[in-house]
Amino acid sequence: MRKGVMRPGHIQIRVLDIEEALKHYRDLIGLIEVDRDDVGRVYLKGWTEVDKFSIVLREADEPGMDFVSYKVIDNAALDRLEQDLRDYGAEVTEIPAGELKGCGRRIRFKAPTGHNLELFAEKEQTGKWGLTDRNPEAWPRNLTGMRATRFDHCLLYGDDLEGNVKLFTEVLGFDLAEQVLDPEGNKAAVFFSCSSKAHDVAFIGHPEKDKFHHASFWLDNWQDVLRAADLISMTDTPLDIGPTRHGLTHGQTIYFFDPSGNRSEVFCGGDYHYPDHPTVTWDTGELGKAIFYHTREINERFLTVLT
Amino acid sequence: MRKGVMRPGHIQIRVLDIEEALKHYRDLIGLIEVDRDDVGRVYLKGWTEVDKFSIVLREADEPGMDFVSYKVIDNAALDRLEQDLRDYGAEVTEIPAGELKGCGRRIRFKAPTGHNLELFAEKEQTGKWGLTDRNPEAWPRNLTGMRATRFDHCLLYGDDLEGNVKLFTEVLGFDLAEQVLDPEGNKAAVFFSCSSKAHDVAFIGHPEKDKFHHASFWLDNWQDVLRAADLISMTDTPLDIGPTRHGLTHGQTIYFFDPSGNRSEVFCGGDYHYPDHPTVTWDTGELGKAIFYHTREINERFLTVLT
Amino acid sequence: MRKGVMRPGHIQIRVLDIEEALKHYRDLIGLIEVDRDDVGRVYLKGWTEVDKFSIVLREADEPGMDFVSYKVIDNAALDRLEQDLRDYGAEVTEIPAGELKGCGRRIRFKAPTGHNLELFAEKEQTGKWGLTDRNPEAWPRNLTGMRATRFDHCLLYGDDLEGNVKLFTEVLGFDLAEQVLDPEGNKAAVFFSCSSKAHDVAFIGHPEKDKFHHASFWLDNWQDVLRAADLISMTDTPLDIGPTRHGLTHGQTIYFFDPSGNRSEVFCGGDYHYPDHPTVTWDTGELGKAIFYHTREINERFLTVLT
Amino acid sequence: MRKGVMRPGHIQIRVLDIEEALKHYRDLIGLIEVDRDDVGRVYLKGWTEVDKFSIVLREADEPGMDFVSYKVIDNAALDRLEQDLRDYGAEVTEIPAGELKGCGRRIRFKAPTGHNLELFAEKEQTGKWGLTDRNPEAWPRNLTGMRATRFDHCLLYGDDLEGNVKLFTEVLGFDLAEQVLDPEGNKAAVFFSCSSKAHDVAFIGHPEKDKFHHASFWLDNWQDVLRAADLISMTDTPLDIGPTRHGLTHGQTIYFFDPSGNRSEVFCGGDYHYPDHPTVTWDTGELGKAIFYHTREINERFLTVLT
Repeated sequence: MRKGVMRPGHIQIRVLDIEEALKHYRDLIGLIEVDRDDVGRVYLKGWTEVDKFSIVLREADEPGMDFVSYKVIDNAALDRLEQDLRDYGAEVTEIPAGELKGCGRRIRFKAPTGHNLELFAEKEQTGKWGLTDRNPEAWPRNLTGMRATRFDHCLLYGDDLEGNVKLFTEVLGFDLAEQVLDPEGNKAAVFFSCSSKAHDVAFIGHPEKDKFHHASFWLDNWQDVLRAADLISMTDTPLDIGPTRHGLTHGQTIYFFDPSGNRSEVFCGGDYHYPDHPTVTWDTGELGKAIFYHTREINERFLTVLT
Repeated sequence: MRKGVMRPGHIQIRVLDIEEALKHYRDLIGLIEVDRDDVGRVYLKGWTEVDKFSIVLREADEPGMDFVSYKVIDNAALDRLEQDLRDYGAEVTEIPAGELKGCGRRIRFKAPTGHNLELFAEKEQTGKWGLTDRNPEAWPRNLTGMRATRFDHCLLYGDDLEGNVKLFTEVLGFDLAEQVLDPEGNKAAVFFSCSSKAHDVAFIGHPEKDKFHHASFWLDNWQDVLRAADLISMTDTPLDIGPTRHGLTHGQTIYFFDPSGNRSEVFCGGDYHYPDHPTVTWDTGELGKAIFYHTREINERFLTVLT
Repeated sequence: MRKGVMRPGHIQIRVLDIEEALKHYRDLIGLIEVDRDDVGRVYLKGWTEVDKFSIVLREADEPGMDFVSYKVIDNAALDRLEQDLRDYGAEVTEIPAGELKGCGRRIRFKAPTGHNLELFAEKEQTGKWGLTDRNPEAWPRNLTGMRATRFDHCLLYGDDLEGNVKLFTEVLGFDLAEQVLDPEGNKAAVFFSCSSKAHDVAFIGHPEKDKFHHASFWLDNWQDVLRAADLISMTDTPLDIGPTRHGLTHGQTIYFFDPSGNRSEVFCGGDYHYPDHPTVTWDTGELGKAIFYHTREINERFLTVLT
Repeated sequence: MRKGVMRPGHIQIRVLDIEEALKHYRDLIGLIEVDRDDVGRVYLKGWTEVDKFSIVLREADEPGMDFVSYKVIDNAALDRLEQDLRDYGAEVTEIPAGELKGCGRRIRFKAPTGHNLELFAEKEQTGKWGLTDRNPEAWPRNLTGMRATRFDHCLLYGDDLEGNVKLFTEVLGFDLAEQVLDPEGNKAAVFFSCSSKAHDVAFIGHPEKDKFHHASFWLDNWQDVLRAADLISMTDTPLDIGPTRHGLTHGQTIYFFDPSGNRSEVFCGGDYHYPDHPTVTWDTGELGKAIFYHTREINERFLTVLT
């Protein structure tokens, strides 16, 4: 049952060098730099996003993800979710409004897979970037790079997928939209949706906790995936794989790495999901096709290179 | 506040000749014929739809729309919405399960614009057409015509838009995603969303009640809109306008007519909507651009040809 | 029989105001400004063109086309063609090398439809714009507007189509790739190719001599035609028609006007032609579909607004 | 200097089992089966091809290419080319009209790389498949599979590239459109054009003579390349690589194998070539990028799996 979580609100990514990272996220992926803060973090967003920011880059000694946060519909829903998390046994930390510029109070808790998750209800709304509020044009004319439209989801690796299923479906009100099952019925991958997207967050089983696989950004169409691939080549950006299609979600995609080794995805298309839809199941025997629909085999790098 | 309405579930369209209509909806638009009933109605769906059907064609002396129905998440939500409708003053009729084959009980009520609306919570789920449940392929190989993927929304014309805003936002839990305002601030068009789509139903102001403008079906991409346009020409189907883009929602679209004179749309792309997004406003002074983004003028036919 | 004419080399267009025209051809269509000359003419090209320029804008009191020039493979072929033109009875004028900066000697003659045509064999080759000669990237990253790739062809209106057929096929070695015939077998439109393109120049029958209908620029794909349409709207550029498809050549297209009233086209796709292909024939009874494949009717403006 | 060779006319491919091969070339790639002959060969073509056939499948014990043939503009040009070939020292064999059904006399000779090449001037013209001659629609509605539009070119491996350059440019009148050079200036790959295509045939240096790398078929657009990739997966067809883009020619492509182990390509887009264009040069140090623009590395299979 949906409980008011609407969408991925922001992700904080650790990078080894902020200016190098901006060449990747701003100049190549085409996110908009919107602000910086006292501790040196840089805030960005995709141009279609109404809220002030969705990506926060923090300079650190190691790459990876600090946390990913979901926006809930209002403070009442946030209070209910906080109580539900406490009832479920989560250790919840309150982060005061303003710790991230323009963002209201956040509640933070750990997923069974070890990842830091957050919920929040309020963030400054600056509107779609480059467009007027009234009679808005179709798109702003001064976009750069891949012209990514929004932060869409992230994929995380960790050990306790069953724990995450309980947390996300029973406590947070997400649906289990897709899953990969081994022959014994154990979950090898779980894709959660709080919307009509095929995934708002996904986890793949992995012995280590709290690993970051990729942050994903939405493109308009398959032609833009080709353009992204061309830009990856022109900028000598390390490519992981693509252009290709996923079996899971059927999105059309390309993966590549930021200068710190964090993986990025830009993608388009794919399936939609409604809360009454049955979970889509893939078998581990078809894992190659589930991940990369065209090659039908996984490149080792995709499974093992994590930050 | 969302109240459990998920999506357009089905629309019943009156056609003058069922077999002629099937050439349009099944062979040209590419919907799947899934069933027929004792009273001669034909049931169809788009291939991505999990529920058994979404389009019902009924032979009649006059074209138009009998009703459009929205699926709610469960019976509890349906009961609550029924009570809310009665509290609001709507005259609610119960239509028993089975009146449409495979569909549970529906509650029917009239919109202030005169249209018959319905809610229901249960419909037989036959799964995506042509795909296996486990390890599903990207699309089925034996689609025809425009290969429309789903019934997406309808646009209706009627007189009391303010009444509809109250009904849809306060009683049914939709958002007013987009609107057109005249210089005095009166609503000339209202677009409602119960999802992250830019519209799940829309109304344009018109002196007469209960008029049907079009039913709309989703295509994957702009290349498919071109393919649809080509098929319209090859089959000598009356074209209204397109391929073009809307200002409102920014979708990419083409309009054409079924043999009974009902307008159809196939479209792709466009904006997304979340419940915390401010309503997007267009001014009637920009109505041409709001409706047809490229020509920036309305063809008279679009405003006046209704069924 | 082919006689060494390779392609449209350049077109000189009259505009009422050079700087206004540059907003159209350079900033909107995305041609590259490459030079200006002593008499105030501005030279442009599409980024894929190897030769120095293909569009020349000349400020004048009236819009229209001064001339269109075709590049032949070498000076020997140019000499042979000059002799063939004289034998045919054309009045040939020699224009010395350098009259257009970077262009070798041109020979000029009048078509039976009254248009000034030219042939030349030499032009400075500056290479594809924005790319290295060796190991070239797929495209340059700093293109603007519609990113038109090349000057592709022009469409001209005039009175003596049979005369043009004789000139183009018998003297200049073009093929009659496509034609429109009236019920008596008279030519209403003729499309000539000197390559494997469906047209390198086209003429439509019209009582007045020497009229200019449009200059056409090549786009990569249908997605770029949508982008062009969006830019036309965003810049409040007068639209003629499109996005749509032609029946003749089957190209995908959009038409719009420069600030002086000259019509521009950007298009993609369509048929290819080889010298052994039979002429493709359309009937005037199908003229609507031949011109605009989707609407199947001609807008009056397309037939009557000329410069 | 062009000498009247127009385009690839047909290729004869050896397959281990004709019916299995037809599932690949006809049902998957979407070529049209047009005829069979007394010796069991099957004739196919792409739907846009005006000539009767372009692909001939012959059942044999080993896969590979028997020969590839180019159509010249007329018999006079064929006679001149035959004489030029004899003057150059080629051993020319005449194959009488009718040996391939509907094809006129062919002259056969060996390339320095060991491949059997042919020229011919006449072939029965059956017109574009599925379209009327007059007022033709944009495309036929009953295409299957990838809907490949034509046989475009082939890539061959062999030892004497310099010899082939002499043969193709000096004797046959092709241009050297693109090449790959090693640091000493030796040719590692040569791409020849007899049209405005970036390649009508290509050769890669290899110690063994007469090897076949792939036959290539044209698709309309990048969306169709995705569709081809999806069909490859759905039919469990062995994939080589793609969807991706080439550096050489910049075409967008996917490679896969027929049931006999012959490689097929479907592709779209890419550069155009005119006879006055300088040869585009890639360095072997950039060979990865030259072949696969996105990964910038060659998969071993692409270089070593030949038939």
